[in-house]
Amino acid sequence: MTRGRFITLEGGEGAGKSTVMAVIAATLAERGIVYEMTREPGGTPLAEAIRALALDAHWTGVMRPETELLLVFAARAQHVRERVLPALDAGCWVVSDRYTDASYAYQGGGRGQPAERIAALEAWAAPVAPDLTFLLDVPVEQGLARAFSRGERDRMEREQAEFHERVRAAYHARVATDAARFRVIDARQSQAEVAASVKAELLRWMDAP
Amino acid sequence: MTRGRFITLEGGEGAGKSTVMAVIAATLAERGIVYEMTREPGGTPLAEAIRALALDAHWTGVMRPETELLLVFAARAQHVRERVLPALDAGCWVVSDRYTDASYAYQGGGRGQPAERIAALEAWAAPVAPDLTFLLDVPVEQGLARAFSRGERDRMEREQAEFHERVRAAYHARVATDAARFRVIDARQSQAEVAASVKAELLRWMDAP
Repeated sequence: MTRGRFITLEGGEGAGKSTVMAVIAATLAERGIVYEMTREPGGTPLAEAIRALALDAHWTGVMRPETELLLVFAARAQHVRERVLPALDAGCWVVSDRYTDASYAYQGGGRGQPAERIAALEAWAAPVAPDLTFLLDVPVEQGLARAFSRGERDRMEREQAEFHERVRAAYHARVATDAARFRVIDARQSQAEVAASVKAELLRWMDAP
Repeated sequence: MTRGRFITLEGGEGAGKSTVMAVIAATLAERGIVYEMTREPGGTPLAEAIRALALDAHWTGVMRPETELLLVFAARAQHVRERVLPALDAGCWVVSDRYTDASYAYQGGGRGQPAERIAALEAWAAPVAPDLTFLLDVPVEQGLARAFSRGERDRMEREQAEFHERVRAAYHARVATDAARFRVIDARQSQAEVAASVKAELLRWMDAP
């Protein structure tokens, strides 16, 4: 059996990830590909319980950056072993709303945890790399305005604009080190334009020899 | 101000740690030492919330060893920064029911996580070493019989005897690498004898030049 492919979607707050997840799902379905949609932190009952703790606004100003990094990787270690790897091994494609790049962006760029520390955790806790990653890129002001219009804010969304600028910069640093894996989508475009760009890039990648 | 001293207490299930915690507290109080009692995983509201998740019997057979290791260190990273280091810096002694040796024993010996992986986490997540550690040593059969007589079992207590044999062996391996820090107490003795041994060893250590 052919191993499934692993696609991840990354981006800051208000970049429009939910819409793009649906576009990816629809495109895979059109091609008759069996896939699973998931998200990080989370994706299994235990990993979702860890997510709830990690993002709870109750711990604002209390949770240390080291604690946050370890919680996010605890959820990821569980998600990868309980769900992602078994699905890929069964020939199923997996599409995840966020994955390890998000730790380099949020816990690294945002919270200042060293990239080498994140890479060391990645090596044993998350032993599967995405085959393709879409980065939805949007200026911080525009993204936050969209996110806040949706209502209640979690611990990440409450952070100041400089935090989100560091997140965005760290995402771009990831692209620079692994350009072949990334498709950077300009998320300032309309929803329809973003959807069309993602679909076109995904089909081109699937059809590549 | 003189920095406080950090004392930890280790041992398998049913070794009698609760009694010994009280003996240590009473001995420090007799000498007029200001101290805090705490425990791991836990010791702060957030770390206790992580503990509840990590030990919940609901996840038996679900939680992966990597997930457990990361959760325990997430709780520890928080506990050390929010409580242990500030207390020591303020000149207060800290007595913890379990600390990093327990990860080498339970997540290392018990669950098979490599010692180098634990040491790498320890280096940045738990940057304070105990000054003195009591290891309450009791044969597994005897310890489990005592623990089970107390009632409901958490995720660790539900493990088989071989698991607890590996935990005990890993504790002894820790003693072998850092003998000066450890006081190994024979916990097959009566409660009164264990209490007298711990008190005598603690006073001797405190009075050492």
